[in-house]
Amino acid sequence: MTGPADEPARLLASWHDNAAAWTAAVRSGAIESRRLATDAAILAAVLDRRPRQVLDLGCGEGWLVRALAQRGVAALGVDGSAPLVEAAARAGGSFARLSYAELVAAPERCGAGFDLVVANFALLEEQILPLLAALRRIMTANGFLLVQTLHPLAAGPPYEDGWRTEDFRGFGDAAWTPMPWYFRTLGSWLGVLRAAGFALHDLREPSHPKEGRPLSLLLEACVSTQGDLSCP
Amino acid sequence: MTGPADEPARLLASWHDNAAAWTAAVRSGAIESRRLATDAAILAAVLDRRPRQVLDLGCGEGWLVRALAQRGVAALGVDGSAPLVEAAARAGGSFARLSYAELVAAPERCGAGFDLVVANFALLEEQILPLLAALRRIMTANGFLLVQTLHPLAAGPPYEDGWRTEDFRGFGDAAWTPMPWYFRTLGSWLGVLRAAGFALHDLREPSHPKEGRPLSLLLEACVSTQGDLSCP
Repeated sequence: MTGPADEPARLLASWHDNAAAWTAAVRSGAIESRRLATDAAILAAVLDRRPRQVLDLGCGEGWLVRALAQRGVAALGVDGSAPLVEAAARAGGSFARLSYAELVAAPERCGAGFDLVVANFALLEEQILPLLAALRRIMTANGFLLVQTLHPLAAGPPYEDGWRTEDFRGFGDAAWTPMPWYFRTLGSWLGVLRAAGFALHDLREPSHPKEGRPLSLLLEACVSTQGDLSCP
Repeated sequence: MTGPADEPARLLASWHDNAAAWTAAVRSGAIESRRLATDAAILAAVLDRRPRQVLDLGCGEGWLVRALAQRGVAALGVDGSAPLVEAAARAGGSFARLSYAELVAAPERCGAGFDLVVANFALLEEQILPLLAALRRIMTANGFLLVQTLHPLAAGPPYEDGWRTEDFRGFGDAAWTPMPWYFRTLGSWLGVLRAAGFALHDLREPSHPKEGRPLSLLLEACVSTQGDLSCP
């Protein structure tokens, strides 16, 4: 039997099992939503902030770190999956293998002074508040956090926080291990950001270029200096 | 022939035509979403801020002004529809008849020093930026703006800004005049708030108590003192 308590472990294990298939899928452009909209959207959102030092949380096989480096932006990728970090390093760039638990315990292990942290479809756990609060401690006072995640309109019902399963259908013919991931409502996203010491600065809704439907939600938050219930 | 240019005039006219039916529908609890969730949600959101002087924009027949008065909160209701303001005044409370165009031209005609402005399903026009910017001028420096509107998941496709038509089906058997109203995406709502000088403080998603689906979006914004692109 498996239950919700097993989901975090199954999530981690799925990234180990799927590392090769994931790397191939990302690098071949097999994931339509990424190819059509969300890759360009997160890259543009990062560049728009003109950051000096970026941390790419849950970097996977590292495409975003490399895309930033090509544009002269220093970025470090961090991921908990050893095979993904190995694939990332082989393709070039700065990467560190650290689990989210390790980052919560000692975020400075990946450095400090980041003026931008980006999590591109990388916050899949239920308990992300400790991680976000830890990252805030290695960010500059004017730092920004960019989170790209599923748009509420792109996820089916029910519209409530909870674990779901990604079966990677439509991600290519590889033998995928299903991945548990935690869906949050819009209000839940804003709540956890605020509780971790961030304030919402902007929100983008990257859309299908022809059909117009939103493919993702891109939350742009900044380090809040006035406490978790304050406005500018 | 009618076109988008006619929508604002038709919107205003519909509130004249529907004033009696609307007053009866609101006062008899005929609108399920209001009865189940959204009336209580907006009232709680206003009271949570402990305001001293509330402006209820687009107050209609005035239920919210009276609900606030019963709880000791001073509120002025303003609406552009003469028959609705007359119905509101007959039931008791402070009300003024001013069109949005009149408020844009001279917001101080309804007073000043409001620490809370509430627009409960009342921003139905396409061009609301001038109105919000004008209201900001009669608000205190720490003032809050609460906007309750349709949740993106409660409106059908397409998910894009544009005029739609409310036919009031399910609002009772009266002879309703269809009402044009302008749908905006989440990103569009945040954009217009920011352009008008507000920052998003919080967001609530009042839901159907049994089915769980979100019935409305409740945006809680504050007067921004750092310009339209600043975070706290």
